This record gives sequence, C-alpha cells and structure tokens, in this order.
Amino acid sequence: MSESPAGAPGTRAGTEPAGPVPALGREVFEFDRDTAARRRAPGVHDIDLSPGWGMGRTLNGGYLLAVVGRALARDLAHPDPFTVTAHYLTATVPGPAVVRTDTARAGRSLSSASAGLFQPVPGAAGERGAETERLRVLGTYGDLDALGDDVRTAAEPPALPPPEECFSATDHPAGPDAVPELSRRLDLRLDPATSGWAVGAPSLRGEMRAWVSLADGRAPDPFALLLAVDALPPTGFDLGLTGWLPTVELTVHVRARPAPGPLRVGVTTRNLAGGFLEEDAEVWDTADRLVAQSRQLARA
Amino acid sequence: MSESPAGAPGTRAGTEPAGPVPALGREVFEFDRDTAARRRAPGVHDIDLSPGWGMGRTLNGGYLLAVVGRALARDLAHPDPFTVTAHYLTATVPGPAVVRTDTARAGRSLSSASAGLFQPVPGAAGERGAETERLRVLGTYGDLDALGDDVRTAAEPPALPPPEECFSATDHPAGPDAVPELSRRLDLRLDPATSGWAVGAPSLRGEMRAWVSLADGRAPDPFALLLAVDALPPTGFDLGLTGWLPTVELTVHVRARPAPGPLRVGVTTRNLAGGFLEEDAEVWDTADRLVAQSRQLARA
Repeated sequence: MSESPAGAPGTRAGTEPAGPVPALGREVFEFDRDTAARRRAPGVHDIDLSPGWGMGRTLNGGYLLAVVGRALARDLAHPDPFTVTAHYLTATVPGPAVVRTDTARAGRSLSSASAGLFQPVPGAAGERGAETERLRVLGTYGDLDALGDDVRTAAEPPALPPPEECFSATDHPAGPDAVPELSRRLDLRLDPATSGWAVGAPSLRGEMRAWVSLADGRAPDPFALLLAVDALPPTGFDLGLTGWLPTVELTVHVRARPAPGPLRVGVTTRNLAGGFLEEDAEVWDTADRLVAQSRQLARA
Repeated sequence: MSESPAGAPGTRAGTEPAGPVPALGREVFEFDRDTAARRRAPGVHDIDLSPGWGMGRTLNGGYLLAVVGRALARDLAHPDPFTVTAHYLTATVPGPAVVRTDTARAGRSLSSASAGLFQPVPGAAGERGAETERLRVLGTYGDLDALGDDVRTAAEPPALPPPEECFSATDHPAGPDAVPELSRRLDLRLDPATSGWAVGAPSLRGEMRAWVSLADGRAPDPFALLLAVDALPPTGFDLGLTGWLPTVELTVHVRARPAPGPLRVGVTTRNLAGGFLEEDAEVWDTADRLVAQSRQLARA
C-alpha cells in the first residue's frame, strides 16, 4: 500500500498512518483522520478515538468497526474487508485505544484474522496497565478489484425520494445545535416514509431508509461502508421502541467497491422477540450496485 | 451443567463429555455423540470428527460450527449460542481435532468468546506437533430461557407442502446408496418447487426450502440449529450453478429454543456478484416461531 508523505496534514511526526489517506488538495477528510491507527508493531495499533463519532459518550459501532477494519487491513496481505463481524463487549468511549490483531490464515485470494479493541481502565497506571476489551472482530479480506463483473441479482435498490425531499439533521426540531456529534459527520437524508417515529407516529413496519454521505464530501470506500450500515436511526424506533438499542453483534459483507456519490441504505427488522431484534441493511451505490449487506443483533 | 454418568453409552471412560447428552432410554443420538468434544483443560477440547457429517471428504460447515459451539458453551457461563460467526479457513477432514477457546467477556446476561478448530498436519509427530487452523469462530452466548415472551414479527414461515409431498434422499435417482453421508444423518424433505435443479431445471430464483429433522429422531436444540441452517443444498444450484460452493463465513442468530418436531428452513440468495453470493436462512419450529436466522458468504 502507498503511504501518505511524512508530515502531511492529519498525520503525526514519527508515526505511521494506517494505510493511504485520500486527500483532496491539502484537505484530510474527517473519516480518514479519525480511523487511522498508528502501527506500533505488527499486530499492535494505537489510536486516539475521536468524540466526533458518538451519540453522547458512546461511540458508534460502525465507526469502531471501521477503525479495527483498517488496522486489520494493515496486517493482512489483502486490502478490502469481504466479511467482518464485531461483537460489542463494553461501551467504547473517546480517548486512547489499542487494536491487537491475530492472523488466522494468509491465503492467495483471501486472508482471515481476528482483532480486539482495548481501552485502558481509568486510573490504571503504565503503558501496559489494565485494559478492557471493547469489541472483538473476526474478518476475511480480499481484493475487490480482482473480482469478476458477473452480477445475477434479485435485489433492487430501496425506493427513496430525492435527497432534497428527505429529512436531514438540520431539520431537528430543537435546532442544528441539538444534533449528536455523529450526525454532524454524516449527511443523512431520511425517507419521510420511515421518519414518522420522530413525531410520535412510527409506521410499525420496522423500516428505515436514507441517503448517506460523509458530510465533508469524502467519497465512500469499503471502510466507509462499515460505518454506513450502522449510521441510520435504529429500526426499533419505527417499531415504537425508544431509548438506546445496543448492538450485540454486527456482520458486514462488502460486495463491491462503491462508486462516488451518496449511498442509499435500507434497513429492515423482521423479528423482534425475547428482547432482541435483528437489523438487516443493504447499501447501494450511485451505479445501482448492491455494495454491502449487513445484519446486526441488538437488544431492545 | 449436568453431566452424563461416567460410562454411559457414547461416552468414553476417563474423559469428560461436552455438556449434557440427551438420551432416549439407553440411546445416544448421532448428533450428540459426534459433536461432543472432551475437555482436556479449560479452553482446550479434543474431538475425533466423524466422517458421518460430510459431503465426500469435506465435513459440513454447520456440523463443525455445532462442534465448536458446544465446546464454547462448556467454557462460558451461559448455555446457548445467541450469535455465532465462523470463518472457514481450510477444508476440515474426518479425524482428530482440537478446539481452543478464548473468553473475551463474561457478563451477567451475555458472554463472548472466540475459538479455533485445529487439525494436526499429516505426518507431523507429537501431541503438540504442527497444526492447521480449520475455522475460527466468534460467539456471544446467553440463556434463551431467560428471554421474555414478547414477539413483534413481520416474518412468516416459508410456504412448504407437507413432508410426504416433498423429495427426500431416498428419491435419489442413483438409489439410496448414492447419497452423501450427511444426507443419511438428516431427514431432509425438499420442496418440489425448489428442487428443479436436480433434474436440470433450476427456478433461477435462488431459493431452497425444506423440512429438516435429524434422521434418528433427536429433537432440535440450539446446537442442532447451527447445523440446520447449513443443511440444505446450496441456493446456487437453484441459480444454475454446479459444483462445490465453499462457505467463507457463516453467522447464525439463535432467537428461541426450538419446539420438538421437524424444522422448516427457507434459504434465499438475493445477490450473486463477483463470484460470491450470500445465503440467508430462516428456521421455523413446529410452534411457528422463527428460531434461527443465518447468513453465509460463499464462493461461486
């Protein structure tokens, strides 16, 4: 992989950025800056997790998967996450974190590894003091550019009104200052048909649809897809649930490299039972390709 | 967990069976016998993998997930797999194998751990000689009996004709002796509407539906669900593909403890692209409950 030049904006002297940092002129995009861990040694990566990707104090699960996913790509011979699963163990907070990876197999066309993201226990002293594991990840990587062009799909993109007819964070009833940090990083345009919950009238169909872009104009790539699948409000809101719906597990399949432009994301829940629900997401790019599929198990 | 009495049928003197072995009178069911690893030490489990769960020399991915899943249950404080993901690294063959587990978090209501299944490299000497990792697993466990009874689901069971109107292995054109070993362990009744591929007329819808029971009458439990999601012929056959479609990754959510009786399993593929396809399975029990959901990524 190519590396950013030392001293480029957004990198730190004496550290190694986690893979190429796409830049437009001298601009470094927020997502690249905030997901780039510094490889201390093979299999050990340090990062200062940004508060910019949270809802309150808790960081978004898709953002964390992108952080770990990029660190894994550094330690594997293949660049793209084909299938990654994260189990969320404890709530991750902004601040220092370490990603430790463990390669399972380095194959010709696919490589597999697991990883853990750890944070220091507050008050514990020393560089290798007590740590708490926040999430554990298992992934298989390949090269999306090496795949054939054959497509035989029964899937169709979600029916979404044009972005200008959808709701955005600036429509927040309490004003733009009331939106969570995560919503400032994303340009999310929610389908009015799945936004009734915001005014107390959920459709009860368990659906959520939106246009998703990074707010600073960064084009989507496979790691941004790991964020996009977890970027919409929970489908539970459309089923009349309120409050936090913590993710237990999230699996993402990246099926193609996304074309530039806004993504269309559709999420559905078929089964809410026993206090758990699944959320199935599909992500489509501007070329009408199904670029990612995901499923998560969340607690109601 | 309760243990089978020492010397009970199907257990071996001086070893520890992997959890309770349901038995009808003195009978030990094939699935329990063949998924029971012996715990050598906490986190280390030995098993002699049976050739009875293969298609040719390669063992079924669902069977292997059940083996690892039961070993994980021994090392965790919670009995039931809520969500488990396996990445298949190399083809597993019948014979000795070791499962090594690594607990990530032991919580009040959920526990998480990863595990690897290893086989000795042929010709390598010694008990701890060279090993090859066959699959790596990440799982979160809980107690299905502790879940509430609330169900708000949009999902409906697959429309299947009664079992006596479906195709079974005994209908194999080359006679019952031609069926693979795995098919002898299962009583699989394939919906004629998704069986056209067997006579050269796939529906091209990417669907597969069947009744699934264990052939010796063992009732389904959460570990049998890990097998059931991977027990049908590949949906790729219904898309006109032939040959082996190796699983890269399989994730199963167990949503409820299944009632006794045959399971209904429906599998669909929405997207075959770039040489990969996903297979989504839903498993329904005789009480019309959605007891498991799964998705796998396979190579075409």
